[in-house]
Amino acid sequence: MLPVTYTTAVQADWVDYNGHLRDAYYLLICSFATDGLMDLIGLDQAGRARTGHTLYTLECHLNFLAEVKLGVEVQVRTQLLGHDRKRLHIHHVVERCDDGQIMAESEQMLMNIDTANGRSAPFDGEVAGRIAELVEAQHGAPRSVYVGRVIGLP
Amino acid sequence: MLPVTYTTAVQADWVDYNGHLRDAYYLLICSFATDGLMDLIGLDQAGRARTGHTLYTLECHLNFLAEVKLGVEVQVRTQLLGHDRKRLHIHHVVERCDDGQIMAESEQMLMNIDTANGRSAPFDGEVAGRIAELVEAQHGAPRSVYVGRVIGLP
Repeated sequence: MLPVTYTTAVQADWVDYNGHLRDAYYLLICSFATDGLMDLIGLDQAGRARTGHTLYTLECHLNFLAEVKLGVEVQVRTQLLGHDRKRLHIHHVVERCDDGQIMAESEQMLMNIDTANGRSAPFDGEVAGRIAELVEAQHGAPRSVYVGRVIGLP
Repeated sequence: MLPVTYTTAVQADWVDYNGHLRDAYYLLICSFATDGLMDLIGLDQAGRARTGHTLYTLECHLNFLAEVKLGVEVQVRTQLLGHDRKRLHIHHVVERCDDGQIMAESEQMLMNIDTANGRSAPFDGEVAGRIAELVEAQHGAPRSVYVGRVIGLP
């Protein structure tokens, strides 16, 4: 089972004139889930201070699969699709807490950054070890059909 | 020249622990630019009331190209890449107002929705006319290299 990296209720200021969660706030929920993933791999606030590293999002793709209304509880599960010495390729799934219905999915590429100079850098050794453990724990998890998508008219 | 669909300064609550615009708020800026596009094609508040239609974002892709700090003024230009009877395929470019440097780009697929039943519907005739005018006005504008991207490790 993939780890839950963030749980929240839909907030009032995330809802737009359509009466549902505005597109950008699905990504905010995923952004907080990336923070949750950072906690898991030792890049929480203390880890960022120790290593001088943080993660930047280089690129992301979002598929909006269902409307979510004010107050609904959702959670994010995060899969590590791949990585190299300084990148993480991940997939967030936003699902309802009550029945597990998937609300959105987001594939993302994250880069490890040395905050001293703002440039990419290899993961710290301890962080790399945690990433390896996470990969091992998720071995065999299936890939979503929303991974690797290109946007286009049908 | 592509129309400017939104202009803003980077707000304090959009900045994260890295001291720059958080990934999700680039999409919020694009989301407001989509509202600006809706104004251009007659789906502003009055147009939504008249037609009973709105637009939902089905899918989007974002490339984060440069950091933006608190207070910086940015604007969004929007290109119509394509459309059919009920979909718009668009591309937002977020650029600095002072020197035009591109901060992010977002390709998106939007669907026209009948708010009475929450289902997709063909564009209203007047809206379709405005879309055709916009396509004509943008004829020959080049496509960004960030259109049609797939996320993957190098």
